[in-house]
Amino acid sequence: MSTSKTVLLTTTERSEALKSLQKWKPNAEETNISRRLKFQSFSEAWGFMSRVALRAERLNHHPEWKNVRPNGWKLLTQVYNRVDITLTTHSIRGLSRKDVTMAEFIDSISEHAEIATDENCGCS
Amino acid sequence: MSTSKTVLLTTTERSEALKSLQKWKPNAEETNISRRLKFQSFSEAWGFMSRVALRAERLNHHPEWKNVRPNGWKLLTQVYNRVDITLTTHSIRGLSRKDVTMAEFIDSISEHAEIATDENCGCS
Amino acid sequence: MSTSKTVLLTTTERSEALKSLQKWKPNAEETNISRRLKFQSFSEAWGFMSRVALRAERLNHHPEWKNVRPNGWKLLTQVYNRVDITLTTHSIRGLSRKDVTMAEFIDSISEHAEIATDENCGCS
Amino acid sequence: MSTSKTVLLTTTERSEALKSLQKWKPNAEETNISRRLKFQSFSEAWGFMSRVALRAERLNHHPEWKNVRPNGWKLLTQVYNRVDITLTTHSIRGLSRKDVTMAEFIDSISEHAEIATDENCGCS
Repeated sequence: MSTSKTVLLTTTERSEALKSLQKWKPNAEETNISRRLKFQSFSEAWGFMSRVALRAERLNHHPEWKNVRPNGWKLLTQVYNRVDITLTTHSIRGLSRKDVTMAEFIDSISEHAEIATDENCGCS
Repeated sequence: MSTSKTVLLTTTERSEALKSLQKWKPNAEETNISRRLKFQSFSEAWGFMSRVALRAERLNHHPEWKNVRPNGWKLLTQVYNRVDITLTTHSIRGLSRKDVTMAEFIDSISEHAEIATDENCGCS
Repeated sequence: MSTSKTVLLTTTERSEALKSLQKWKPNAEETNISRRLKFQSFSEAWGFMSRVALRAERLNHHPEWKNVRPNGWKLLTQVYNRVDITLTTHSIRGLSRKDVTMAEFIDSISEHAEIATDENCGCS
Repeated sequence: MSTSKTVLLTTTERSEALKSLQKWKPNAEETNISRRLKFQSFSEAWGFMSRVALRAERLNHHPEWKNVRPNGWKLLTQVYNRVDITLTTHSIRGLSRKDVTMAEFIDSISEHAEIATDENCGCS
């Protein structure tokens, strides 16, 4: 859509972005960021995903994501309320302004999604 | 799914249901109920609709609904944030317990949807 | 997204567009076009609507639409498989290139949606 | 919904099911099955996922799934058109009739989804 080229964040920009995106975790090389969300129900998770899909189309910038049941939950709890999201800009092999915009949007529509601190995010 | 037959609410049950569903308006014959919702954005409206669609499939009971821009908004405001919903049980030509269940679900996931009191709901 | 202004189609452009969009019907003033679609199931209708929602966000151009059960179907057929869509460009009170783009997209993803020739489309 | 208990498929039933579900691959213990799908676009993938979500709610049986861009694609091809799905019945730690029903539904609505034979499915 935009004619401006998508470029890598500078080291300073990336450092500031990572500081403000408290709920997101970069990989070792800081070429992507990931967040794990846990909702009350599959319904709530799906309503969230439907809004992220719209935003991704608007930005032409899509996440890699999965929707699963939480690790370590009791066997009979069949609630598929977890969403793991990884953001990166493949064309430049790293983080761009679009990843920050998408992460901020995701945070803004999921205030009530509990962060599962007891579960390491090995999103991929 | 259920083997129990879907039956009309009795006059007393209907009267109680209509009293508790304050945001819903019955038609003259009280064979259906309608509600108009207004969200902050199309994104929010669509997230809502996606959850209603899931619930409708679970209950095997679907609404008649439309998604439009509000009446009377200034011409340039192109926000498609309004959802009009009508609930009825066609097979019995009136209101059943399923309509109440669906109306309660809709209310529970749309607390922040402003009721447009200045717009009459001619949902159909 | 785009910086180019959205403008009305000229009379010639509108005439050509209406000729190629065989499945769409303009209103008397030719300020909007409508199409009625009928799918095999609510599931199929909803898969369609989900794709139209994405496209609308990409174009920043949303339809007015409703999802209902067909008129005149036997009482017990509770299939909410009909989608009525109206396209217009509110900011210019008429048809623009965006309406044509959206109509073409809708046609391209709904080849199997039966046209209900026995039902007049009073979509709105 | 149903009052019948969800039970493991017998060895014979499982063997027959796996034979008929040609596009699905069981894990070593045959406690789950996975399929990788590749669509023409994110839009098509999302329309598919929206229908699977409805069906999962109807059956009260949800997949573990992810939506990503294909492995090994050229760097600039940013098409998030791949969906990896794993089906199992957690409450019984294995495959039940519900997994077969869901797999058959997924196959029935994705006839045109190319199977990526050059990509091993390490879905999880």
